[in-house]
Amino acid sequence: MAMIGAGAIGGAVIEALEQGAVPGVRLGAVLRSRSTDEEITDAIGAADVVVEASSVEAAEEYIPRVTAAGKDMIVCSCGVFARHKDPRELLARGPSAGRVLVPAGAIGGLDVLSAAARAGTDDAHLRHYTIKSPAALNVEEHLTQRREVFRGSARQAALEFPLTSNASVALALATLGLDRTEVIVVADPEVQRTRHVVEWESPVGDYELQFENSVDPDSGGRTSAITAWSVAEVLVSLAAGAGPGVVVLGADRW
Amino acid sequence: MAMIGAGAIGGAVIEALEQGAVPGVRLGAVLRSRSTDEEITDAIGAADVVVEASSVEAAEEYIPRVTAAGKDMIVCSCGVFARHKDPRELLARGPSAGRVLVPAGAIGGLDVLSAAARAGTDDAHLRHYTIKSPAALNVEEHLTQRREVFRGSARQAALEFPLTSNASVALALATLGLDRTEVIVVADPEVQRTRHVVEWESPVGDYELQFENSVDPDSGGRTSAITAWSVAEVLVSLAAGAGPGVVVLGADRW
Repeated sequence: MAMIGAGAIGGAVIEALEQGAVPGVRLGAVLRSRSTDEEITDAIGAADVVVEASSVEAAEEYIPRVTAAGKDMIVCSCGVFARHKDPRELLARGPSAGRVLVPAGAIGGLDVLSAAARAGTDDAHLRHYTIKSPAALNVEEHLTQRREVFRGSARQAALEFPLTSNASVALALATLGLDRTEVIVVADPEVQRTRHVVEWESPVGDYELQFENSVDPDSGGRTSAITAWSVAEVLVSLAAGAGPGVVVLGADRW
Repeated sequence: MAMIGAGAIGGAVIEALEQGAVPGVRLGAVLRSRSTDEEITDAIGAADVVVEASSVEAAEEYIPRVTAAGKDMIVCSCGVFARHKDPRELLARGPSAGRVLVPAGAIGGLDVLSAAARAGTDDAHLRHYTIKSPAALNVEEHLTQRREVFRGSARQAALEFPLTSNASVALALATLGLDRTEVIVVADPEVQRTRHVVEWESPVGDYELQFENSVDPDSGGRTSAITAWSVAEVLVSLAAGAGPGVVVLGADRW
């Protein structure tokens, strides 16, 4: 595995690997903005999978290159897809091209929501509330009570709040798409931990999923600690050929 | 794909295949209790993956046989694993043995909960409430208000309520195991739709996931319609090599 970026998420994924919490996955190289073109080419060539945990700009630059090399790429800064009408535009084409995998990030339930979307989307409604401290949202005014700072589509949220909308984009890509997923961002001076609420309604079922995440102290209050573990789950699932969101019992674990 | 059983879940999965909702998957054979040994051998031999949607007894019988044939098996009646100290005891061993995949069934969030469990289980607590009509739970007395009919581990729930505990077992296998997952079953004469509430607490985050499912009319009120779609998601994820619970963008879809 090659890692792009070694900040809050990348650093935590590397730590999880070092602790042996992600069996079967080995860190090959860490790419940073000062990496040379040759270092990048070598790292992609040696990796089975490349993990981006850096920025929307890095994702935009790396996705065509990694997929053209036939390697799979786990993209954390999935807000990049809001810039493109078809999220697959960024990927290299052709039978030997690699794929992009988007982890659920700070939320979950993409398993049941993608199943509900497959059952039918005509009468489906989906809302994602993100409730963070004003500092984590770069809201500078002094707030004494919670305030809605954004309401719109997941696409608009990603363009307006590129650092804090990745979970909305993952949710949208798994279900109703970037333009039919409603996102509400709330700044709340009272919250210590980041909260997410996902509401789904459709004929197959109504779901309300509440996530209250501990914040990674290295991230300036922006990144939930669970996000790095969601990347670890995707790495494990790639090795297993299925999951997360499904239990895999394999004889090869003995 | 070969299907064992054609009841509420199996029938709905077959219907989804016929509607083209599960691309890349084709139904080869449907096995029933009256199938001959030769029909079973042929069906397993021709399939890449076998789906069990029948009964705990059928799961117990088929898991060793299918995995010994080197085929993967999606097991809906996963309560069968409560009968065995190690859930993998039932699987054939060896490098060429097939695997078992357990779908989330009537609930979801196994993606985030398995990530949270990977982050650490020492201080983790997990509760699963199932709230169904008395008829769906085979509670025969006339109830005028909701009543708790069971509280215990996921293992005990599966042994006592084999028809209605599969989601509890899937949840337990994905996280804290069958003996540390607390299950509460509530009979409620007021409920029209089956409700599930999953509560997780650990240092990485607190999650409360509420699922209210439409019931499949063919199932006597026992089976949620989403369950068949969770099987469809696992079939799609096996074909994609990852997911559900992760978005896979692949160039090969063009």
